[in-house]
Amino acid sequence: MEAISSALSALSIQTEKVVKHAAANSPESWRSAVSDVASTLGFPTSNYTKTVVFKPKTAKTATPTPVVLIAKDDSEYNTGAVAKHIGQKEMRLAAPEVLKEFLNATKDDVSALSITKDNASQLIAVLDASLATSTEHFAVHAASSEETLFMSGAEITKYLQSTGVKLEVVDFAKLKAEAATPVAKASAPSSSSASAPGSTQGPIPASSKAKAAEAAKIPDAEQIGITVRKAGDFSEWYSQVLRKGDMLDYYDVSGCYILKPWSYFVWQSIQNFFDAEIKKIGVENCYFPMFVSADVLEREKDHIEGFAPEVAWVTKAGNSDLERPVAIRPTSETVMYPYYAKWIQSHRDLPLKLNQWNSVVRWEFKHPQPFLRTREFLWQEGHTAHMTLEQADEEVMHILDLYRQVYEKLLAVPVVPGVKSEKEKFAGGYYTTTVEGFVPTTGRGIQGGTSHCLGQNFSKMFNITVEDPKAAEEHRGKDEGKLHVWQNSWGLSTRTIGVMVMVHGDDDGLVMPPRVAQVQVVIIPCGIGVKTTPAEKEAIMDACDQTAKDLKAAGIRAKADLRDNYSPGFKFNDWEMRGVPIRLEIGPKDLEKKSVVSVRRDNKAKAPLSVEGLSESIAKLLDTIHDDMFAKADAEYRSRRKVCEQWDDFTSILNDKCHVVIPWCEVEACEDEIKKRSARQATAGEAEDEKAPSMGAKSLCIPFDQKQFGEVKGKKCPQCGKDAKRWTMFGRSY
Amino acid sequence: MEAISSALSALSIQTEKVVKHAAANSPESWRSAVSDVASTLGFPTSNYTKTVVFKPKTAKTATPTPVVLIAKDDSEYNTGAVAKHIGQKEMRLAAPEVLKEFLNATKDDVSALSITKDNASQLIAVLDASLATSTEHFAVHAASSEETLFMSGAEITKYLQSTGVKLEVVDFAKLKAEAATPVAKASAPSSSSASAPGSTQGPIPASSKAKAAEAAKIPDAEQIGITVRKAGDFSEWYSQVLRKGDMLDYYDVSGCYILKPWSYFVWQSIQNFFDAEIKKIGVENCYFPMFVSADVLEREKDHIEGFAPEVAWVTKAGNSDLERPVAIRPTSETVMYPYYAKWIQSHRDLPLKLNQWNSVVRWEFKHPQPFLRTREFLWQEGHTAHMTLEQADEEVMHILDLYRQVYEKLLAVPVVPGVKSEKEKFAGGYYTTTVEGFVPTTGRGIQGGTSHCLGQNFSKMFNITVEDPKAAEEHRGKDEGKLHVWQNSWGLSTRTIGVMVMVHGDDDGLVMPPRVAQVQVVIIPCGIGVKTTPAEKEAIMDACDQTAKDLKAAGIRAKADLRDNYSPGFKFNDWEMRGVPIRLEIGPKDLEKKSVVSVRRDNKAKAPLSVEGLSESIAKLLDTIHDDMFAKADAEYRSRRKVCEQWDDFTSILNDKCHVVIPWCEVEACEDEIKKRSARQATAGEAEDEKAPSMGAKSLCIPFDQKQFGEVKGKKCPQCGKDAKRWTMFGRSY
Repeated sequence: MEAISSALSALSIQTEKVVKHAAANSPESWRSAVSDVASTLGFPTSNYTKTVVFKPKTAKTATPTPVVLIAKDDSEYNTGAVAKHIGQKEMRLAAPEVLKEFLNATKDDVSALSITKDNASQLIAVLDASLATSTEHFAVHAASSEETLFMSGAEITKYLQSTGVKLEVVDFAKLKAEAATPVAKASAPSSSSASAPGSTQGPIPASSKAKAAEAAKIPDAEQIGITVRKAGDFSEWYSQVLRKGDMLDYYDVSGCYILKPWSYFVWQSIQNFFDAEIKKIGVENCYFPMFVSADVLEREKDHIEGFAPEVAWVTKAGNSDLERPVAIRPTSETVMYPYYAKWIQSHRDLPLKLNQWNSVVRWEFKHPQPFLRTREFLWQEGHTAHMTLEQADEEVMHILDLYRQVYEKLLAVPVVPGVKSEKEKFAGGYYTTTVEGFVPTTGRGIQGGTSHCLGQNFSKMFNITVEDPKAAEEHRGKDEGKLHVWQNSWGLSTRTIGVMVMVHGDDDGLVMPPRVAQVQVVIIPCGIGVKTTPAEKEAIMDACDQTAKDLKAAGIRAKADLRDNYSPGFKFNDWEMRGVPIRLEIGPKDLEKKSVVSVRRDNKAKAPLSVEGLSESIAKLLDTIHDDMFAKADAEYRSRRKVCEQWDDFTSILNDKCHVVIPWCEVEACEDEIKKRSARQATAGEAEDEKAPSMGAKSLCIPFDQKQFGEVKGKKCPQCGKDAKRWTMFGRSY
Repeated sequence: MEAISSALSALSIQTEKVVKHAAANSPESWRSAVSDVASTLGFPTSNYTKTVVFKPKTAKTATPTPVVLIAKDDSEYNTGAVAKHIGQKEMRLAAPEVLKEFLNATKDDVSALSITKDNASQLIAVLDASLATSTEHFAVHAASSEETLFMSGAEITKYLQSTGVKLEVVDFAKLKAEAATPVAKASAPSSSSASAPGSTQGPIPASSKAKAAEAAKIPDAEQIGITVRKAGDFSEWYSQVLRKGDMLDYYDVSGCYILKPWSYFVWQSIQNFFDAEIKKIGVENCYFPMFVSADVLEREKDHIEGFAPEVAWVTKAGNSDLERPVAIRPTSETVMYPYYAKWIQSHRDLPLKLNQWNSVVRWEFKHPQPFLRTREFLWQEGHTAHMTLEQADEEVMHILDLYRQVYEKLLAVPVVPGVKSEKEKFAGGYYTTTVEGFVPTTGRGIQGGTSHCLGQNFSKMFNITVEDPKAAEEHRGKDEGKLHVWQNSWGLSTRTIGVMVMVHGDDDGLVMPPRVAQVQVVIIPCGIGVKTTPAEKEAIMDACDQTAKDLKAAGIRAKADLRDNYSPGFKFNDWEMRGVPIRLEIGPKDLEKKSVVSVRRDNKAKAPLSVEGLSESIAKLLDTIHDDMFAKADAEYRSRRKVCEQWDDFTSILNDKCHVVIPWCEVEACEDEIKKRSARQATAGEAEDEKAPSMGAKSLCIPFDQKQFGEVKGKKCPQCGKDAKRWTMFGRSY
């Protein structure tokens, strides 16, 4: 305290008012220890400060610069918004060791006074504007949890400035309010800079942005249809397509969405395929509770550090406060593995292969996006334990290939299978494999599903061991004779649906891949006019109805739209918006010719089909549509993967909305550098695009298929010049 | 305040210390308004009281007696435990109207002083012991939210006594600790009185209870098997069978359990059947978020009153407090119906039939029981909207019949379909149909699944309307021309699994109904001794393996248990405990005779089966086992449904562990009376059985099949003597 005392005295801040009291180990106990004293001394009894320390994401090799946030006790803030505001990424709560190392403090005594001239250069201080400017006095911990000093907001500011720390004064309330602006509003007129037409060099200034939004509008689109172009205002287009295509509805809890039958059908189709496949390799389904105790959640450190800021906590039931709050699972590693330790007693209990179909909650404060970033989402999570790394490896790859099949065989979406860099792998895991997708309109990559090998990290943490059957006699029954199991975890979520929509949809709405479309064929009666006799009309209606029945009997999901209050044109648009793969039109002339007119949704191609053998020709056509949709998307993706061996080309390839494949050194610091160097300079005064928080390129994956890019041996990393190890795909991403 | 002032003065309680302050509309604002004054007056600044008013469940026709709970601000209590302690049932938070009517107060000013000589006789006061005996002073609201009086705990007690209110001083901390005792411990040695052997007259005194527990033990049971008899200590038996039969594991969050693959398979089997059936009638699946905003949750009053005390609230994410806490759905009526109002615009949008497979949370404070009463459980919830009551009616009955089929055709469990009494119907609904099951060991009924017609109650609350196509011309487009839709909701949960286990299990463990058993046939190599040659052994092993393959190829879920470190005897017990329907034994002699020995799990019957045509004979045997299991359970249930026309017989039938079918008047007050009169007198000093909170009989259902009980016309209700309307099944229940 002495050093600080003299620093304070130098600023004419009275230090005789440091008061001693019982040690406080929580805000409550501090309040109760201090309130009497405060009133005795004539200070407000309800003014306290809080100090929270964060560690922003940095390369593992780099020394982190902790962010010390100081505010009134009752101030609310949005960590994500603060981070963005001060130009930091992914601020996580700092571990106790960080507090100790950088501030020589604990959570019970850390305060503005923990920042000193000695440590100031290693820290960033963030001060809430409402505290910084207050003339009222606030309780501040003074060097220990047993001492408190009352300082005015202005004095706190003055003190911090005197230390030489990098000080950011931020209006928390304003930031928080901005971050909470509802989705629809935020995304409506301001087009995402990444998708603004013709923009390849950077965000467009505000005035031309408004013009771009205008240009994005589809002139003749009725209000009922999609009113903007996909290439014009991608974000608004996505939102409209989902809602007007009947995939989802917005919900009154932010970041949560209603999956309507049209999208849930896609999910059930994925479930049916994947569930049957994993059962073939001996995976069993189970269900673990959605609640996790704090103890268990926090057992694995690296892992929880990644999730902690997004964990939702239940603290009340009815009107009672829970004695111990429970978390809602953000994923189930730490939920399940204590039980694996109990269930796995012998090598005969291996492999243990369990899967869950459930929902998880990650209360992200970033801008939510339907299917892609939601606070609750549906997924499956597989968790398996093996005797050897080889067995674990084999399964990781098998599952990844099933994910590839989900995308390619069901959703007609091409993906690149590969392995993640060390920086991008799963927190706490050994290595992560991934299928990476691509959204051509924005040129951004999207992680499609991940299959992780966790190695022995979790089994060591949770003590999941078996006797090694190969152990030497003298080691049997001892620690040396034990083997920590090798674990995997793998997950695929409803994000699949978002990728599918983004890849295939067009200016008229959804384009559904046939295998996951709830309705594959819609049959619409046509050519009924004022001159049509009731008998003729009935014949057409009957033919539509009968065709639907025949197709259904053949296992095709068909529907006759016999609503008589809508015109054929209205119905055409309606079903096009919902993306039904094939439309069949049946009119008087078709009846005569014993044929129907088929119209493909994907390319609008029109062709007559004979009624004879219709089920067979439709089944074939559905497969053709699937193949064509895949081929088109695949060709697009391939044309946007560009090999780059000169750094000078890197950013321009990126700005052409392409992925960049480089011969890479695989050094983590180099990856950080690539991100930094490739980040576009934000135009001064232009707010960073909320929907593209990371404008630099990151490594998406090291593709398994290396040969397609030629020989890598002997090449140099274009960024740092070191020897290249493998071809690696970089890009902007979701 | 004057009347109270004089009452206080009469007790020598100083009233000059009533202080005025800013109106407080929350505990926080009260604290901040009062703390300065408190310190000025020399009172502790952190002592506050809280007052919570409950309405216990009573007959709708009866006048309720609100319970006023008074405690220190920071005291925690368990509503269920308090209710039980003071002999009340299902205390719900009282609505504002109740506070107004009985106490002339609001939530912001209600306090001990709201109880006066005038209203005391209509109330029950419950005072926390730690407050009642405290000599410290506490802030108490004095007649308005702008006035506070500081009273010592003893003064509060004295005041309450002076009003003449029925006053219960209860030790909240102790009660809460007792209620939180973990399941396994609580249920271990104290046998449920309802299932104590030979006990038909009432709970056994403590000493003989210990003996009964001893007698319930199975003498030769190894620790690995089930160690108690089903008929002896049912509660412990149930717990052991579930864990040792590998159905579930206990979890470190109370009231939550892990569904292991063995039980999840049952649930998936139910899902497969039911999902296909509802799709046939046009129901579509969807997914609504698990979170509900408080606004929406509380929209329908009667409905939420039933759920409010059990709602879990998320108040924090990471380290940030949420601005508005969100609830986790206890059921989805109020979650979904605001969107129904939006989606249903015309009669052409009807019927709307949606279903969800999800989990819901009801944070019950009662004793949890795996599958039967858990804080999170899996279920399906269907929610449909129709044009007419007739269409709604038809669907209610169709769904109920599907529920009957789940129990009878899949689980081999007999149920009685019927309609609930007015008292027992779904809160906020029109009428409730149910399939009622029966647990012979305890003689208690169990609600198996419910299909509700909600009438127009919710559609009026949420304004779900369509233009009535039959409306008169002049009413079109006006309110008179609108029609509120008719709604249903229906749900079936994992409770099904608990009922199945309770009905079929025996002293050796689970007995799985064949159609939902993950393994239907287990094949065990036998007769391998020291003299067996390696070639002979290999032949036996191969035969087992081949048999499993052949059966699997025929669609039978078969498994060969070739573990060579376990004896056949061990394996027999192991698979018996898990309830596998058929065991096949294959030894050297069987190989010679080209046959196998089959052993049924349900009745232990042993029979040789020829290898030739084995798949067919096994398939047939599985059906026979199903039929026999159902027939046995059905005969038992029927024999325990006893018609009763004289009140004198009612309780003795009940105590013989039977259901009582009476010709009933269907008057709600009569139902209350039946419950009261049939409740056993709790032996003095004997704690009421935690697992049988409701020992009186309630109406289970009015069975649809009335004819089986004969003519009801002209009969009188045995309880009240009024004219009987329908035969009604009463009983003790879960």
